[in-house]
Amino acid sequence: MPTDIYDPREVVNFSAWPAMLPYECLKELQENLLNFKNTFCSILEVSHRSKEYMELNTETQDLFREVLNIPGNYRILFAHGGASTQFANIAANFQGKQWYVITGDFSERAYKEAQKVSESFVWKREVYEIASGKESNFSQIPSLEIISEWIQKDSTYVHITDNNTLFGSTLFQLPETDVPIIADMTSSLLSREIDVSKYGMIYAGFQKNIAPAGTAVVIIRDDLYEKLEEKLPAMYSYKTLVDIDSLYNTPSTFNVYFSNLVLKWIKQLWWLEVVEKLSRTKSELLYDIVDRSNGFYNNAIHENNRSITNVVFTLGDWGLEEKFLEEASEHWLVSLKGHKKVGGIRASIYISMSYEHVKRLANFMEKFQKENS
Amino acid sequence: MPTDIYDPREVVNFSAWPAMLPYECLKELQENLLNFKNTFCSILEVSHRSKEYMELNTETQDLFREVLNIPGNYRILFAHGGASTQFANIAANFQGKQWYVITGDFSERAYKEAQKVSESFVWKREVYEIASGKESNFSQIPSLEIISEWIQKDSTYVHITDNNTLFGSTLFQLPETDVPIIADMTSSLLSREIDVSKYGMIYAGFQKNIAPAGTAVVIIRDDLYEKLEEKLPAMYSYKTLVDIDSLYNTPSTFNVYFSNLVLKWIKQLWWLEVVEKLSRTKSELLYDIVDRSNGFYNNAIHENNRSITNVVFTLGDWGLEEKFLEEASEHWLVSLKGHKKVGGIRASIYISMSYEHVKRLANFMEKFQKENS
Repeated sequence: MPTDIYDPREVVNFSAWPAMLPYECLKELQENLLNFKNTFCSILEVSHRSKEYMELNTETQDLFREVLNIPGNYRILFAHGGASTQFANIAANFQGKQWYVITGDFSERAYKEAQKVSESFVWKREVYEIASGKESNFSQIPSLEIISEWIQKDSTYVHITDNNTLFGSTLFQLPETDVPIIADMTSSLLSREIDVSKYGMIYAGFQKNIAPAGTAVVIIRDDLYEKLEEKLPAMYSYKTLVDIDSLYNTPSTFNVYFSNLVLKWIKQLWWLEVVEKLSRTKSELLYDIVDRSNGFYNNAIHENNRSITNVVFTLGDWGLEEKFLEEASEHWLVSLKGHKKVGGIRASIYISMSYEHVKRLANFMEKFQKENS
Repeated sequence: MPTDIYDPREVVNFSAWPAMLPYECLKELQENLLNFKNTFCSILEVSHRSKEYMELNTETQDLFREVLNIPGNYRILFAHGGASTQFANIAANFQGKQWYVITGDFSERAYKEAQKVSESFVWKREVYEIASGKESNFSQIPSLEIISEWIQKDSTYVHITDNNTLFGSTLFQLPETDVPIIADMTSSLLSREIDVSKYGMIYAGFQKNIAPAGTAVVIIRDDLYEKLEEKLPAMYSYKTLVDIDSLYNTPSTFNVYFSNLVLKWIKQLWWLEVVEKLSRTKSELLYDIVDRSNGFYNNAIHENNRSITNVVFTLGDWGLEEKFLEEASEHWLVSLKGHKKVGGIRASIYISMSYEHVKRLANFMEKFQKENS
């Protein structure tokens, strides 16, 4: 039985996306589903032009600013679609040289989308990939020094994927460069403290740490804002969205509402300093078992780059994988199957997942090893 | 007091978008929020690659097919963003001549987005507007005969806006042409029976009749599917979405789930034949009061084009408008203010709104006229 004080649920959902959300926020939604801010209408029904929603929109932007400590020279917007939609939008919104650091599957996808944008749109842009870790099957993050040397100083941006969900690796240090860094933080935003001022732009699909799927938050520094393409179709254009406060068309009102609940939950209970400590402790619990297992479990990621949100490992005896998943599921530990491109086991342990939840997986892993060695 | 059997709520929300949703579906969501299909996880948390969600995805497509009687040579997909996002996507997905019938604000927006696409993308396309009703402030839908004569036979498509939410008018008859018709049915899909086989493509943002905001359903005939642009960035490309069953990236799982509830609700209780009768009866109730009011209330739309989902009217004495809205609100009749571009009063009476709800507005209108004549 979980002794968790803030999520009494028996089932632990290790899904990488969509993923577990804070139990308290789900309960609050359930309780107030039919009455948003005393309108006696559901948040699902309230007009995005209503006073109540406009306030929520502003409040949620302010909460992102407060919790992530976002400086005043950054603008915050909510866009339709997750990170994949932003891959194309980002490339489309800028001209000039665009660099992509390839550290996993999603950074490759971002790069390929930028290439397609380059072939589809009339404006001049050059798209380069750099420092692919493909040879090592992405078990190492490429050396940052090399990255910095290669990127030309007149480039518009260098794109990085902060956390590689499939492979379980994270780029904890940024390349040292004066070229603005654009970071996909879909699976890591809100899981640790970051210095926003070091980024030109940060974006994240909601569906991991933040809220249900279908929306992204985009945080953009003034110098990059000034470079945004003006003539794009409105819904591809970040300028349209920023200038009209994310209300050009109907936003995903419900997702913004839920992110508001999650941000308040972080603020009241944890703050990012605590969240980060908890994320590190949770992931170390699992890595420790892997490292002490004498090859029963294996993790190929360099220890400096191990993700604190997605712990990926294989079983030394691959034949045991199905049995592991089946028995885990009998212990209510579900959605542990690794991505089909990688295989193995993946435990996604985002911020909503308590230490107790992860401890249950750790206990199961030890038990399973004992019984199958 | 409302005597409504399927929505006991006191407040009646006439918002045009997002809008009232079926009370029964909201209650079902509330009840099952923490347990989607016996996974003991919330629908907000379940992976889009899980067996349970994949089944829901297929089932929801099947429900659209069944309820709308969609023939086998049409494909159904769910896309991120509402209609505005599709404005750009549609233009981007096709080459050749694209015609836009301008009958209101959103058809103008669609046309302008297509123009921007034409200027932004490298592929050859020509975008034309036709039959603007702007001179009459969109109080009349332009003659369909003229539309048919003008459109060149080798055009790729002609785009129409089925229902004009701001002005309260509907294009009940289609232009007679062999050129495929693409229809924005955001504010009318599911409100009346249609012959899908007469359309090349139908699309609708979810946030009026179908589900919460942030997602659109796109229904596309095989001949137009064959013409879809192949080289677009993945998330702008309908081909990508169709070919991978709307699961290229994480879809808005929650919105698809809610549309599933609404479609089942329609199927169990109403079917479209009944829904259409109810929509007509509801709107006639209000138009009748307007027409019998001797100019106290006015509606400028030609009677053949009056919308059955958005009833728009002004008060003969404009000075009474604020008073009307205030007193209506005291009777729990809310969100009746017309769009800022049009002014006046707008009662959006989508399918979730019962006859009893509309009757309450009708009674209030009669009372208000008596007290202020």
